[in-house]
Amino acid sequence: MTDTLTQTASYTDRHGATHALPDAAGDAQVRADDRAHVFHSWSAQALIDPLPVAAGEGSTFWDYQGNAYLDFSSQLVNLNLGHQHPDLVAAIQQQAGRLATIQPSMASDVRGELARRIAEVAPGDLDKVFFTNGGADANEYAVRMARQVTGRRKVLSMYRSYHGSTATAISLTGDPRRWANEPSDGSVAHFFGPYEYRSAWGSTSPEEETARALAHLEQVIVLEGASTIAAIIIETVVGTNGVLVPPPGYLQGVRELADRYGIVYIADEVMVGFGRIGEWFAVNHFGVTPDLITFAKGVNSGYVPLGGVVISQRIAAHFDTVAFPGGLTYSGHPLACAAGVATFEVFERDGILERVRDLGERVVAPRLAELQEKHPSVGDVRGLGLFWAIELVKDRETREPLVPFNASGAAAAPMAAFAAACKQNGVSPFVHFNRTHVAPPLVITEDELVRGLDVIDEALTVADGYTV
Amino acid sequence: MTDTLTQTASYTDRHGATHALPDAAGDAQVRADDRAHVFHSWSAQALIDPLPVAAGEGSTFWDYQGNAYLDFSSQLVNLNLGHQHPDLVAAIQQQAGRLATIQPSMASDVRGELARRIAEVAPGDLDKVFFTNGGADANEYAVRMARQVTGRRKVLSMYRSYHGSTATAISLTGDPRRWANEPSDGSVAHFFGPYEYRSAWGSTSPEEETARALAHLEQVIVLEGASTIAAIIIETVVGTNGVLVPPPGYLQGVRELADRYGIVYIADEVMVGFGRIGEWFAVNHFGVTPDLITFAKGVNSGYVPLGGVVISQRIAAHFDTVAFPGGLTYSGHPLACAAGVATFEVFERDGILERVRDLGERVVAPRLAELQEKHPSVGDVRGLGLFWAIELVKDRETREPLVPFNASGAAAAPMAAFAAACKQNGVSPFVHFNRTHVAPPLVITEDELVRGLDVIDEALTVADGYTV
Ligand SMILES: Cc1ncc(COP(=O)(O)O)c(C=O)c1O
Ligand SMILES: Cc1ncc(COP(=O)(O)O)c(C=O)c1O
Repeated sequence: MTDTLTQTASYTDRHGATHALPDAAGDAQVRADDRAHVFHSWSAQALIDPLPVAAGEGSTFWDYQGNAYLDFSSQLVNLNLGHQHPDLVAAIQQQAGRLATIQPSMASDVRGELARRIAEVAPGDLDKVFFTNGGADANEYAVRMARQVTGRRKVLSMYRSYHGSTATAISLTGDPRRWANEPSDGSVAHFFGPYEYRSAWGSTSPEEETARALAHLEQVIVLEGASTIAAIIIETVVGTNGVLVPPPGYLQGVRELADRYGIVYIADEVMVGFGRIGEWFAVNHFGVTPDLITFAKGVNSGYVPLGGVVISQRIAAHFDTVAFPGGLTYSGHPLACAAGVATFEVFERDGILERVRDLGERVVAPRLAELQEKHPSVGDVRGLGLFWAIELVKDRETREPLVPFNASGAAAAPMAAFAAACKQNGVSPFVHFNRTHVAPPLVITEDELVRGLDVIDEALTVADGYTV
Repeated sequence: MTDTLTQTASYTDRHGATHALPDAAGDAQVRADDRAHVFHSWSAQALIDPLPVAAGEGSTFWDYQGNAYLDFSSQLVNLNLGHQHPDLVAAIQQQAGRLATIQPSMASDVRGELARRIAEVAPGDLDKVFFTNGGADANEYAVRMARQVTGRRKVLSMYRSYHGSTATAISLTGDPRRWANEPSDGSVAHFFGPYEYRSAWGSTSPEEETARALAHLEQVIVLEGASTIAAIIIETVVGTNGVLVPPPGYLQGVRELADRYGIVYIADEVMVGFGRIGEWFAVNHFGVTPDLITFAKGVNSGYVPLGGVVISQRIAAHFDTVAFPGGLTYSGHPLACAAGVATFEVFERDGILERVRDLGERVVAPRLAELQEKHPSVGDVRGLGLFWAIELVKDRETREPLVPFNASGAAAAPMAAFAAACKQNGVSPFVHFNRTHVAPPLVITEDELVRGLDVIDEALTVADGYTV
């Protein structure tokens, strides 16, 4: 571990007692309970070894051995304001002390305030918010609104996308996590989005990629039948599946196709909303206004489960006199909303959006360009704000991925070796297929950011060993 | 308003400032934000008028006019330990101050501790917990586990049931909330459950109802094809759709049928788990062990969104080496789990289960029997613990409901008049179709309980005016 990372030598247990790190007993107790009783997401339960986490602060978390990890994936790209941000902690503590919860059918001050704040930064006339518990259900309800409003059922979504894991959300998903959950209900058709580095159409420029991707989408609309299609859902910047930044004009083109064919355009901003690319909503960067925006994660850094759908006036108006057929016990949860309101205050006071854009342009972009020059394993780098991908290849000529699509076990060894090298040097990396993403908390200091990039630089040398 | 209810004459705003009640300005601000920006569950947005809530304590909440409401429905039957329980508040504040969140793939002390506590009180060998954000997604993932384990797809669920509103959960639901969400994916078949007061088979005794309901279920299994059926999902005591307590032997019979046909038995205890009927899990009362139990609400009184699935060893073992294909960003959220651990401590220290059984048997049951004697509008009373239904009829002979099934507007006027009479006297009632439920917080004092039942008694006189 890098010495400067081990700033904390202690942690607080849940009874308020302080323990020195390392603490073998603390570690053993957490492991015992976890292995005996906790069933983990997306895992073969006997093949995992979850790391007990003792403490966190800002961009760093500590295990019970006292090892510090600089978090380059913001947990699941949700911890935008880092661990234990004092303003979010205070907001939660205060709301817990005044009114932890109230049911959705009543009115709550913080719920209304957060909805107003979100409406203020959302594009166009999107000014009502339906709150959910997370990202998957936000997408469930956005699709439901689109179906109710259009009277149509089918939804178009992208290959190489992730939209969540409940029934509708997983059927929208365009990555292998959908496979084990099929057959779905047959109401989703997948299309190809722009991906300049691996164009589905052999494009050689961003303009060409935009034109061909839009022509493809229109063909899918026509062949699936516009009159059957309720919605098109798109991650404004594709997240887990590659930090795929749409080329200029693409999202505008989607907006026009949606208008032309009477289709609802849903922007999934669960991962990229609330500052990740240096805007409140990523669509603001691209100058387009979808009909619905789904969000979660960054809205309150995941300190309390919260998600939601921002709704255009046209769609909201449909439900003025017709009941919306959906709901959940914790819609608009006051404790979650209080952390959301505090998020707005911190973002504004501390100029978070500005610093994200600055760090992205001034620190990350040039450094990744350098890494690409230097390391034969780096095929492509791309991103915006504090959201970047480094795509690793065996061979820069052929662009053959360093590990095959959806590889696991031995086939994924080169990426595992890269990740291990990062961890050994105190960085917890985001690794997916043949990519690593740079997605640290938005409050990361410039020093930490540079140090993390240094570690990635070093670890890429390990990846270089697997190139041809 | 009853005078004794207005114990608080003030509330705290989110900046920590105290305001006297009534507070017209506070009320106006909350209403303005809510009506302009909050999209509400299950509603025609222009036809609702959500009540701004200023404060809550124990079984009471206050509006900005200073009116106190004794909460006879525990919000959405989730507020089992009442508003602002000091131990839950302290647990949340403490956890927020030490580590608000950590991702699902790592191990967390409170997550493991809560999973262990749940496993300890769950029946049989159910000893692993998959945590979700709420009840709907708990059911989504329980069904997914059943499908993976059996390799079958179909699910049987009851008419007159509610299982949540995401795609799988709403398709399981057996009440009108499903209708606007159809067609579903065609993988659910609905059957009739026992309902002694309105038997689907004309039974005249509980024994007969059990026998006929089980014969019916077996016929449905045979005709749908056992080899196609992954799971049977049943609310252990049907909640929103009637507080339908299964007659003796019914759930045992379900367990036997599930075993005989190789079907997974899922008990949905989102509403009735964690003390509502005086047991940790309602199945404990009936002496049956399902394969999966889903929970939410009472696990932490909804102070922080949390739900989950308790998993038998057999089902968990299936996923030892095969990955479970599902997950969510906030699975096992530490802040939510901390409130769950505190719930266990309060239940044990304060003997909550014992007091629920005592109040149910000693106070509620005899009083409801009295109301049935006294009011011609009362057709049936039934329940357990602090979970009771009063079913209102036009005519006790014919059992014609006081308002038609799924009535709204003018057709529902008699129930609206009953509800208004409750509210005028300071009780916030649970009203659904032709029923009112008695489901107060489990910490309600005996005085409050008696006072609330007095108010219901009086309001039933209004309902009596609509009988033949
Ligand atoms: C783009 C996107 N949509 C939806 C989701 C699902 O969110 P949740 O895990 O809160 O259900 C995610 C989660 O990673 C996501 O990245
Ligand atoms: C029996 C039952 N199951 C599931 C649910 C859905 O829970 P949630 O609203 O948290 O999604 C409910 C909610 O009322 C319920 O009563």
